[in-house]
Amino acid sequence: MSDKPSGGALRPGSTIGILGGGQLGRMLAMAGARLGYRIAVLEPDPKCPAAQVANMLFANTYDNEDALEEFAFNCDAVTLEFENVPEETLRFLAKHVPTRPGAEALRVAQDRLIEKQFIKEAGAPVVDHADITDGRVFGDSLAAFGGDAIVKTRRMGYDGHGQVRLTPQSSDAELAEALESALSNDCIMEAIAPFVREISVMVARSRDGQTVTYDPAENVHQASILRTSTVPASSAVEVQHKAQTLAKQIAEKLDYVGVMGVEFFELGDGSLIVNEIAPRVHNSGHWTELACTVDQFEMHMRAVAGLPLPEPNRHSDCEMDNLIGQDIDRVPDLLKEPDSRVHLYGKRDVREGRKMGHVTRLTGRA
Amino acid sequence: MSDKPSGGALRPGSTIGILGGGQLGRMLAMAGARLGYRIAVLEPDPKCPAAQVANMLFANTYDNEDALEEFAFNCDAVTLEFENVPEETLRFLAKHVPTRPGAEALRVAQDRLIEKQFIKEAGAPVVDHADITDGRVFGDSLAAFGGDAIVKTRRMGYDGHGQVRLTPQSSDAELAEALESALSNDCIMEAIAPFVREISVMVARSRDGQTVTYDPAENVHQASILRTSTVPASSAVEVQHKAQTLAKQIAEKLDYVGVMGVEFFELGDGSLIVNEIAPRVHNSGHWTELACTVDQFEMHMRAVAGLPLPEPNRHSDCEMDNLIGQDIDRVPDLLKEPDSRVHLYGKRDVREGRKMGHVTRLTGRA
Repeated sequence: MSDKPSGGALRPGSTIGILGGGQLGRMLAMAGARLGYRIAVLEPDPKCPAAQVANMLFANTYDNEDALEEFAFNCDAVTLEFENVPEETLRFLAKHVPTRPGAEALRVAQDRLIEKQFIKEAGAPVVDHADITDGRVFGDSLAAFGGDAIVKTRRMGYDGHGQVRLTPQSSDAELAEALESALSNDCIMEAIAPFVREISVMVARSRDGQTVTYDPAENVHQASILRTSTVPASSAVEVQHKAQTLAKQIAEKLDYVGVMGVEFFELGDGSLIVNEIAPRVHNSGHWTELACTVDQFEMHMRAVAGLPLPEPNRHSDCEMDNLIGQDIDRVPDLLKEPDSRVHLYGKRDVREGRKMGHVTRLTGRA
Repeated sequence: MSDKPSGGALRPGSTIGILGGGQLGRMLAMAGARLGYRIAVLEPDPKCPAAQVANMLFANTYDNEDALEEFAFNCDAVTLEFENVPEETLRFLAKHVPTRPGAEALRVAQDRLIEKQFIKEAGAPVVDHADITDGRVFGDSLAAFGGDAIVKTRRMGYDGHGQVRLTPQSSDAELAEALESALSNDCIMEAIAPFVREISVMVARSRDGQTVTYDPAENVHQASILRTSTVPASSAVEVQHKAQTLAKQIAEKLDYVGVMGVEFFELGDGSLIVNEIAPRVHNSGHWTELACTVDQFEMHMRAVAGLPLPEPNRHSDCEMDNLIGQDIDRVPDLLKEPDSRVHLYGKRDVREGRKMGHVTRLTGRA
């Protein structure tokens, strides 16, 4: 148990620590400041996006116990902006300071196999999949999935990293390479869900178990990176409600505190499969900053601080476009649009596939 | 002229300096970060609200030339968050870095007498007033104004500081005291405008002379401190348009760059008198953060950076309440309202009359 009280809400002037200093940490930091909190960021890179807007930076690795102790000493609560924070880091910090979400959410979300088992236990469907323990499972599963499958590392994947797509047209050499990689890396194989669209729900859960959800967003990915989120999604209303209900079930089963993203595949018959969960604010929830009174970043910081979680009020329809790599060159034109908010992350170096910012465009009244 | 180019728009990653570290600087800093800029704050108090969210703090006085040079060296453009920055500070900085707005706007706004003359020359009416140069002017003016008047210091007044209200019921002792104070401080006497309401307009002007205005807000003051701003104002549409036109005229005449606030008295016949101008973002424009796509803080930073100024899009009606002193105790209840955004300034000490934060409540579709 932590040294610090986890009882009432954090008072204004308290300090909330964020593990990780990317754009999600940056937006959490600004939302926390708006609530009157001071923000401390722990992240190895002192030039990270979040450091530019935080009150304190602890530029250190996630496994330096002295640094973690000092960080904990300076914080009244700790949260995180990416799910690959080592689980041990959170367990260590939790001895000194309340951590929200807790290490259990990380343990589940960091391993695709455990994650899928957990989601099933929470009562939500997942795609057919297999743990690739040997060549026979690999071959049998690929056959069972009709030759169409995707091999993913169990741990540390994001934006398509560590994924190999297999089709009935894959050559023997490609299959052999995928198998070798799968066996050396701890991988699962997933069937391809024949989805008609991808949607996601941001769900927030408070310390006392209250859950609220935002309206589902309809997402388009390219090369495994999110390109656009559109709200409202074109799904039927009952499908949207079902997605919100499933997201709440998962957050409850995880005993989660904060905002988490739940990604779904919607099939042709309106049924839903959970693709993955992200125990943090999520790129497909960035639209909330322009179209909602309380956005996902403030909602997360409210949950971490023990403040009330109001039912999200969406006043407008909208579309969010990610600005990836050279998309940054579109910014001068985007800044001319009266109904758009351009949001940049303060990253100096433009690289292919790097998320540089996003733009949210209001498209009508909700 | 400054060492640095003042030509094109500032590129993302450039640094914008802000003179002053109060809540206006804090909100400007966050809006600037959203546009991808780094923010440097110059302000004597290292624990000021803006320092908590800025990339760099120069904790120094406004008259230390070495510190100003270092600040200028680190900035690609400089702006300000309060009008009582010494005019000489801005003139000194302008030798090294583009300053927006320029020193001329400060010279005008820092002296109530010069301000009123300037506003008249810009074609906007002001309240009857007199420069209190001696006892005779004092007595004659008070008589001319029917015994109802207000004595104000020409310089350094805000939130009612340095003001004395006189009525036909004022005693001889009170009048003598007001006169003595007026003569020792450089004061003007203003007639009391028989207004039916107070409204204000935020006007933004770009470097190339484009102006845009937000919808007027209707303001209620108590003890000379703004309590609430309501949008839309209850003024007739043509009165609102007239206020916007006058605000543009003043910004143009000042050759202003950035957002400025123009406060009006509206009389019973719908005519308008300019009460005062503020060469900066303004408390009565805080509502824009919730009800507009581009709020006054971002609009100001866009003007400073040379970015486009879109016509403001107000999607909702709203009301902004200031949280002053012990109003901070209302925050837990305010946080329960789903249509309200609570914004706190990170001030540790609660004092009577101190602005601790504000809350903006959406009241309907625009």
